[in-house]
Amino acid sequence: MKLSRLGEFGLIERVRRAAPKNRDVILGIGDDTACVINKTRSSLITSDILIEGVHFDLKRTSLFDLGFKTLAVNLSDIAAMGGIPAYLVLGLGIPAGFSTEQIDEFYQGIKSLAAKTAVALVGGDMSVAKNLFVSACLIGHAPFRPVTRGGARLGDDIYITGTVGDSALGLKLLHHKPSRAMKGPHRYLLTRHHQPTPRLTAGALLARERLATAMIDVSDGLLQDLGHICKASNIGAVLWEEKLPLSPAYRELAGNGTEDALSGGEDYELLFCARQRDRSRIEKSRKRAGVAITRIGTCVSPGRGIVVLDRLGKHVSVRSRGHDHFKRTSTAAKTSDIWQ
Amino acid sequence: MKLSRLGEFGLIERVRRAAPKNRDVILGIGDDTACVINKTRSSLITSDILIEGVHFDLKRTSLFDLGFKTLAVNLSDIAAMGGIPAYLVLGLGIPAGFSTEQIDEFYQGIKSLAAKTAVALVGGDMSVAKNLFVSACLIGHAPFRPVTRGGARLGDDIYITGTVGDSALGLKLLHHKPSRAMKGPHRYLLTRHHQPTPRLTAGALLARERLATAMIDVSDGLLQDLGHICKASNIGAVLWEEKLPLSPAYRELAGNGTEDALSGGEDYELLFCARQRDRSRIEKSRKRAGVAITRIGTCVSPGRGIVVLDRLGKHVSVRSRGHDHFKRTSTAAKTSDIWQ
Repeated sequence: MKLSRLGEFGLIERVRRAAPKNRDVILGIGDDTACVINKTRSSLITSDILIEGVHFDLKRTSLFDLGFKTLAVNLSDIAAMGGIPAYLVLGLGIPAGFSTEQIDEFYQGIKSLAAKTAVALVGGDMSVAKNLFVSACLIGHAPFRPVTRGGARLGDDIYITGTVGDSALGLKLLHHKPSRAMKGPHRYLLTRHHQPTPRLTAGALLARERLATAMIDVSDGLLQDLGHICKASNIGAVLWEEKLPLSPAYRELAGNGTEDALSGGEDYELLFCARQRDRSRIEKSRKRAGVAITRIGTCVSPGRGIVVLDRLGKHVSVRSRGHDHFKRTSTAAKTSDIWQ
Repeated sequence: MKLSRLGEFGLIERVRRAAPKNRDVILGIGDDTACVINKTRSSLITSDILIEGVHFDLKRTSLFDLGFKTLAVNLSDIAAMGGIPAYLVLGLGIPAGFSTEQIDEFYQGIKSLAAKTAVALVGGDMSVAKNLFVSACLIGHAPFRPVTRGGARLGDDIYITGTVGDSALGLKLLHHKPSRAMKGPHRYLLTRHHQPTPRLTAGALLARERLATAMIDVSDGLLQDLGHICKASNIGAVLWEEKLPLSPAYRELAGNGTEDALSGGEDYELLFCARQRDRSRIEKSRKRAGVAITRIGTCVSPGRGIVVLDRLGKHVSVRSRGHDHFKRTSTAAKTSDIWQ
């Protein structure tokens, strides 16, 4: 059905009925504001905008995946503070020619991830627009002291969850062949790009047990995001190339090349620092974190900047370094590329 | 300076420095999420998107006024629940040709109203976009039980704060002559359109003293928004035309015509219902509310719909009625017009 037949009220009612809910929502969609329970003394708030033609291309991304990723990238920010996600507010600019089925597909993507993470859609706004855009605001509880980017100290270890570079390779594949034709490792990398897994359990665990001294989620690339920690904590960093966790699919496609692992964005893994004395505690927490945790480097004096060493101790030259690029605090990576 | 010279990081830093702050923000712009204090057990959340060419026209609206109004319309939603505003999150899609001075002007508009209402800008996202759009999410405290649209009962009185129809007349004037040429009553109506006053004190007072049984802010027009209360409360309504509060400027331009007062949108006054037995308490609260409060009608059985009576008791015919139009829950009034 065309949206023009349903009208905005019909659309809101459709969204309201299908909206993921939870018991902490006193008042959801349909009044002047939503009203929600505060479970902790402070709340975490994050937001992202995703614009057609800037952040995604509807020829290569399904609306389901767009919905999924909209929520995933915001969840990842909450994870990077060690928080618990709770309430989603969604602004949508929708081209006039869209159908209700297309909007349903977008919300299905949101719902599939919201159901797993107990997130409720509590409100938002919709309007016609020339290009599709999504503006999401996610509010979370902060049961533990939030882990900022600024707490790393000289000598701290540097860790990363999961594997890196998968999303960047998935994106490259997408430019070469249609997604429906992809199988095996190609399919794996594509899914890592379209449906990243926010590391909520790991983030909350690291915050609760005060293991992470600084933390960020990798949205712009390992080096660039490490640069944010380095700047905020006033440190430098040494990474060991051979320690970088690469997936079997990544190795099958890129061999031992680490360019995409170091500079590719949108993996949404957690990059964090921790005291050396906590190594065994982190070792033990791996299982509960629900994801691999790999020690990949160490914090050094700020004068050294960020250095990547190969197995022989030689500097690895990387095209994009990131340390002095501080172009963004959110996921609008491509923005800078266009502006600069 | 062109934004392309400043880059996104420079822009974020510029916004961060100028951002209105308050003491309840533990962590503002610059990390993965903001972290804010919850002063009450529950929070109110509202959001709005404003799109160039749909909701505003930069030929007729200054960026200062756009910033002011972006915050004002969200404040008005918090006022309509009886809440206290606190934290603003702002998503901006910005055309590539914009200058830093233009962005500064927009934020000046936000700041001028934020300073008066103790609202802190705690985060957001920015990206290039073809057309300017603003996506705002405002979070407020709920120290009193929120006043929904659904609590009005048969026999309740109907009240409105301030005056109605000014904004619609201001908008009409804007189509006929340049704003800089406007003086006197014209200037007054234009300001009412560009810089509406959210009725925060009145809203909080009516909620705290449990005077309002149902409340909404008038964004789509008196009749249309009364329709939302009628539907949610399952009542009908009779309004007395001669009681409608009209400003001297309105009377100077429109005489005693009430079309714009009944159907014109964007006045952002509070429309509420209250028990008859509370008339004297409401009378006494007027001064503390900081705005006129006028009794304009009464709640009747739902079968009667919404009726406007003139001084002789005859039905007033109104072009746009609103009662069965329920097209939106937020300020995207024009959306429905385009879609339907």
